[in-house]
Amino acid sequence: VVGRKTLLRRADVEAAAEWLDGKVAPTPVIRSTALDEVAGARLWLKAENLQQSGSYKYRGALRAVGRIADQGRCVGVIAQSTGNHALAQLYNMTATVVLPVDASAVKVAGVEAAGAKVILAGTTVEERLAVVTELERGGNLAVIDAYDHPDVVAGQGTASLELIEAARRRNTQLGAVVVPVGGGGGVAGACLAAEGQHIDVYGVEPRGCDSMAHSLLARRRIVVQPAQTLADGLKPSCVGKLPFEIVCDVISGVLTVTEAAIAQAFCLVLFHTKLLVEPSAAVGLAGALSISSAYDDIGIVLTGGNAEPSVVARLAAGHLSTTNSEGD
Amino acid sequence: VVGRKTLLRRADVEAAAEWLDGKVAPTPVIRSTALDEVAGARLWLKAENLQQSGSYKYRGALRAVGRIADQGRCVGVIAQSTGNHALAQLYNMTATVVLPVDASAVKVAGVEAAGAKVILAGTTVEERLAVVTELERGGNLAVIDAYDHPDVVAGQGTASLELIEAARRRNTQLGAVVVPVGGGGGVAGACLAAEGQHIDVYGVEPRGCDSMAHSLLARRRIVVQPAQTLADGLKPSCVGKLPFEIVCDVISGVLTVTEAAIAQAFCLVLFHTKLLVEPSAAVGLAGALSISSAYDDIGIVLTGGNAEPSVVARLAAGHLSTTNSEGD
Repeated sequence: VVGRKTLLRRADVEAAAEWLDGKVAPTPVIRSTALDEVAGARLWLKAENLQQSGSYKYRGALRAVGRIADQGRCVGVIAQSTGNHALAQLYNMTATVVLPVDASAVKVAGVEAAGAKVILAGTTVEERLAVVTELERGGNLAVIDAYDHPDVVAGQGTASLELIEAARRRNTQLGAVVVPVGGGGGVAGACLAAEGQHIDVYGVEPRGCDSMAHSLLARRRIVVQPAQTLADGLKPSCVGKLPFEIVCDVISGVLTVTEAAIAQAFCLVLFHTKLLVEPSAAVGLAGALSISSAYDDIGIVLTGGNAEPSVVARLAAGHLSTTNSEGD
Repeated sequence: VVGRKTLLRRADVEAAAEWLDGKVAPTPVIRSTALDEVAGARLWLKAENLQQSGSYKYRGALRAVGRIADQGRCVGVIAQSTGNHALAQLYNMTATVVLPVDASAVKVAGVEAAGAKVILAGTTVEERLAVVTELERGGNLAVIDAYDHPDVVAGQGTASLELIEAARRRNTQLGAVVVPVGGGGGVAGACLAAEGQHIDVYGVEPRGCDSMAHSLLARRRIVVQPAQTLADGLKPSCVGKLPFEIVCDVISGVLTVTEAAIAQAFCLVLFHTKLLVEPSAAVGLAGALSISSAYDDIGIVLTGGNAEPSVVARLAAGHLSTTNSEGD
């Protein structure tokens, strides 16, 4: 355990936070009385949907790209998943982003608009990794995995660090921090940020996209065939090696949520906090609601806000019919 | 003009801001690169949709109710329009809110949930005023007009004051501040906040709900028959006396926007800034886009976020078909 912990520590997240200060948006922590009443606990929502690029992934990507640029050993970067690595051009490096063939049009357009080259390949992590390996051989390109990379984990952990500290500045010790799990970089970062703070950390996965839950049970990484889910940002077939090693002895649990719970959480965030999040981010609230009776104060990282208009229209319409049928 | 100006000054807004400090949410000022590209200017969006009660009206209502409570001369308050005055109970006073018969179910439920008594009466300001006058005669109740009240104007002006100062802290002098106009309290407060600052202040009205535009032309208050509009918060048939007196010699202009422009602005805010605003608040962005070529930096007060799920569903679906047809 001691050896494992030396992989990455809270100090690495603190160092990332110091480096990112002034480079990322100082996103607010939102409270909502109405949402607290639904939860039966005080919820502290870190609004990373307001982050640059609309996602907390910007933090990890910027930290990783910036460090590679500082080292000066590469002319470009390759990323395997969501497109924040497009910011490579800030550092005069080329960026190539490998996305799954079912990536949303919004996502592809966003990456291209940011100046990166998009390659669509496969639907699984393994298929995309094969393409990445091929690209890496071809030139002076560094691979930045979307979650299996120490700078990405530390960078994404800064969202949880800021959340914990924002609550503390308002004289509140969070009992738990809840983060959605795709590849596990964010929740691993949260575990580091919470280190030594007496804060329980939970991951949340959509039902059927639950590699982390299976992996924790098996005590080794387990590949799953991701189910269809609203939370299309949480569909890696396997959690990353580094994230898994960081969380496996310290995480308090991984919660699994249904599609109905994700849809409900999406609307609760939208109509109670007035924030647009992507369904993958609503997963965090859905998980928090399932444990809220056990805590007074729960922090939730609202990881991103890149929602498709068609999905927003459908979920808002569904919320309407739900509340109508309850006479609200 | 000198006599008129002594009605209310920037100092009154500053005093209100000092009094409200710690009592209202410190709402962020949001920037969006994508939105700036649409506008061709830098936009600074004061996110009052994140304010308590979901509206900047909370500022004016709290300031007014708090002052009445401090004076100790009344046991309750009567409000004529949107329901933030429900916060009277914070000061152990009763609150009665008179809303138009076509007030949204969300609005009525919100007011009642906050502990206030709701009376539905008429669709015009005049009809509601008659009811208010009757109630006032019956007991030790103070009337807080939704906009025609000095503390309400000063309180709502604090949103613009904070916006101007937030930009200044980022070394930016706003060229213009844009505020939607219903009864005119918010834009009057903006004029006070901008006093002596070399900042142009614009009001924005939906087409057909343009009492302020007509009143400025006539140099006296003009009653209109409000048209149907998405922006149901901006339907008073006449601007308030005090707001009109404050703005008439200092406002740079009143812009009129179409329903299509409001719908487009609603979606631009939602999908670019990740903030849910009510259509009445989107009116401010719609107006700002019509003058954005003339300014480098424009501040916009996103006045509130109490949008109906059915409206959100419809507008998001419309955005989808628009962007699809343009191949975006």
